Amino acid sequence: MIRLALFLFVAFTLSVKVEAQPSVSQTDADFLRRIYTHTLTDSRAYPWLEHLSLKVGHRLSGSTGADKAVTYTRAMLDTLGLDSVWLQPVMVPHWERGAPEMVRVSGSKLLGNQNLPALALGGSVATPAGGITADVVEVSSWEELEGVGERNIRGKIVLFNRPMDPTRIRTFEAYGGAVDQRVHGAARASKLGAVAVLVRSMGLRADDFPHTGTLRYDSTVTLIPAAAISTNAADQLSQALREEGKVRVSMQLNCRTLPDVMSYNVIGEIRGSENPGEYIVVGGHLDSWDVGHGAHDDGAGCTQSMDVLRTIKHLGYKPRHTIRCVLFMNEENGLRGGKQYAAEAERKGEYHLFALESDAGGFTPRGFTFDAEESRIAGFFERIETFRELFEPYGLTLARGGSGADISPLKSQKGLLSGYQPDSQRYFDVHHTAADTFDTVNKRELELGAASMVALVYLIDKYSVGK
Amino acid sequence: MIRLALFLFVAFTLSVKVEAQPSVSQTDADFLRRIYTHTLTDSRAYPWLEHLSLKVGHRLSGSTGADKAVTYTRAMLDTLGLDSVWLQPVMVPHWERGAPEMVRVSGSKLLGNQNLPALALGGSVATPAGGITADVVEVSSWEELEGVGERNIRGKIVLFNRPMDPTRIRTFEAYGGAVDQRVHGAARASKLGAVAVLVRSMGLRADDFPHTGTLRYDSTVTLIPAAAISTNAADQLSQALREEGKVRVSMQLNCRTLPDVMSYNVIGEIRGSENPGEYIVVGGHLDSWDVGHGAHDDGAGCTQSMDVLRTIKHLGYKPRHTIRCVLFMNEENGLRGGKQYAAEAERKGEYHLFALESDAGGFTPRGFTFDAEESRIAGFFERIETFRELFEPYGLTLARGGSGADISPLKSQKGLLSGYQPDSQRYFDVHHTAADTFDTVNKRELELGAASMVALVYLIDKYSVGK
Repeated sequence: MIRLALFLFVAFTLSVKVEAQPSVSQTDADFLRRIYTHTLTDSRAYPWLEHLSLKVGHRLSGSTGADKAVTYTRAMLDTLGLDSVWLQPVMVPHWERGAPEMVRVSGSKLLGNQNLPALALGGSVATPAGGITADVVEVSSWEELEGVGERNIRGKIVLFNRPMDPTRIRTFEAYGGAVDQRVHGAARASKLGAVAVLVRSMGLRADDFPHTGTLRYDSTVTLIPAAAISTNAADQLSQALREEGKVRVSMQLNCRTLPDVMSYNVIGEIRGSENPGEYIVVGGHLDSWDVGHGAHDDGAGCTQSMDVLRTIKHLGYKPRHTIRCVLFMNEENGLRGGKQYAAEAERKGEYHLFALESDAGGFTPRGFTFDAEESRIAGFFERIETFRELFEPYGLTLARGGSGADISPLKSQKGLLSGYQPDSQRYFDVHHTAADTFDTVNKRELELGAASMVALVYLIDKYSVGK
Repeated sequence: MIRLALFLFVAFTLSVKVEAQPSVSQTDADFLRRIYTHTLTDSRAYPWLEHLSLKVGHRLSGSTGADKAVTYTRAMLDTLGLDSVWLQPVMVPHWERGAPEMVRVSGSKLLGNQNLPALALGGSVATPAGGITADVVEVSSWEELEGVGERNIRGKIVLFNRPMDPTRIRTFEAYGGAVDQRVHGAARASKLGAVAVLVRSMGLRADDFPHTGTLRYDSTVTLIPAAAISTNAADQLSQALREEGKVRVSMQLNCRTLPDVMSYNVIGEIRGSENPGEYIVVGGHLDSWDVGHGAHDDGAGCTQSMDVLRTIKHLGYKPRHTIRCVLFMNEENGLRGGKQYAAEAERKGEYHLFALESDAGGFTPRGFTFDAEESRIAGFFERIETFRELFEPYGLTLARGGSGADISPLKSQKGLLSGYQPDSQRYFDVHHTAADTFDTVNKRELELGAASMVALVYLIDKYSVGK
């Protein structure tokens, strides 16, 4: 009897284990084929992105562009026959660039007198009336900054000039290895008495586009102005410093931070047929930097996410869980939208089994990465791996890795998070620049991404991965 | 004793089998890392391509552009310290477009009188003096052509308007499913009495670029002129036909075929240290169509192939087999270079264990496909699969599939062939058009392709796959 009981126990355990694994089928393969066929012939992602890029344009939090983007995307979601569409209020920072900035070299033998292509970093203070003129000190690491020391930095403009590492295959890793200069450069240089900061743009290409992006001040030291200069300008300035020993630069930044303003996350949902109180989110961020069109960053992710819900409706798939498209406000300089969404979900006890973000550009799809709390990721990923063969015909790989900034506050719910991963090689050519324009987005690539996202959402919902 | 003998026999067989498999090592992983680091920081592929695109320009067989391309690439190979560099003579076709073609709709209510964006197909005959004016008959398949029949086709211009299938993930498959219209349309329509042919451009994008490309006449019927019109123009013409029943078009093509001329394959080689009489080839085709820069097709493949030899020299790798870079002439309208190279190799008894072609654009790398005679491919591919983990960090997949047109005549030698596979989504936006320009090639993507090609050549050489 004991042996029989043991046998039954083992058999039961095994059967539970087997049932817990998704068992993908020809039905799934066929449904994925329908998703791609629909999206590649009838997607709205591209015309939506065209409108968002060319009619709305850039849309930094607090700007009229951001307001227009909220109105437009809400109106588009309203056309999809969803169960509900609404705006979720969120207070966001309001920083303005003001009149175009000026970063000017004067009296250099090599460079003469010339303006360098520059953009104030997001959140920077302005220069004092009359601007700042000072000698430049170049460093490429925190160690070098400390080594140069206060004696040589006080009263100077510090140039942070460590390039992104071109030998990293994944450009996001190269970004991760350099962006500390942009984020912390002003605070660290100010501690040593610097009067302003220039940062080499976060790009892998030698070109004339300055890349803006956010910085973090340290409120215990003076807030000093900071601007990015193009990679070419950084190289030229560096060369002039080597050859001439001393280079004088004038900076004029006209930016200001105004009081926070009300803005919105834009949300649409299809109610779940079996577990309406459990949620799947797919999203991107609606705000962008205040240059270019914000087409790749992140108009692409927004319109793809909207297209996910449109395709689910179109194909008549009845999701088991409630599926939401969330267009988050203020990813670029505050993450207020992502935090607000997670806080509201927490307050209402809305369990999110899965959240997917597309915020790495509208380029050709390469796959998805998956993240969760440490105790849960291995179990989740084992189930995700059963989807591998379904994605192979579409050239997609599934791996453990990061997800997205806006959905990261949901991680504490212990569900599954994922980041859509398009090819990353061209992303930092346009990221946070005037070059992030609609014409650099390829229609098919955008659509293939949207279809891939529908496919993943469908499988997660059907097999309840993330619970 | 018999059992011992059997044991020894089995053990011996196993050990032989094990030795025959490549046994990739940390050394290989390290060497691949060196290849990528060198190529991503010190490649010449991009500046070479810039010269080939902007200073040489397009280079159809027999043109002065083709001559200049031969001179330039030979001179560049001469700078690399190779063991030999030479030109291999080959007679090539000489077709000229002449004055720009004209395809004009007249008297349509929808379209008015307007010129359609058009390019004569390569090899097309000219229209008679005064051009051709006739009504248009649209078909989308050979069955439809036969169904419409001679009675309705005689004296007309046939429009072949079957689009490339946008739902195919691999765009080359979509191309393969439509290009028969361009290749055989004129011959098939002529049999039914048509006076000329228009073909919908081989592209997936709705745009105004006509795509040229080669056609094949049937010498038993009248050679009629043929031109491609842009996808937008084909759609408009089709709509006008639906709405108005009858649309009249005038065509004027000014092309001509001149006598064959002497041209060259450009070849550079590094002699093998162990088996100098066995060959590995890496190449692309030097000729292009006579529009745009031929930057992706196939300037990219040529400069990547040249870069493979430069990197091998630079890293001090001593290949076991002789490694050749071959820039083939006349892939686009004759394949004479590829045939000539294979014939010479055959004549001299040069066994080619491996040939790799890059002729699918300079886009971000996805992997390689492998081909060989049916009796050998399975054995070869089993060995290739042991390289899989080495390529994973670089995002490359290895699969059975096609290789390249220029190297296909080498297949009868029973060695291994491979095609470099960059991402295909954007390729048919530019293929055979004025849009195939240098600025559409991304430096990093081009370099990542070149590095991938060096890595594969190194592994094949080291482990003698293909023998």
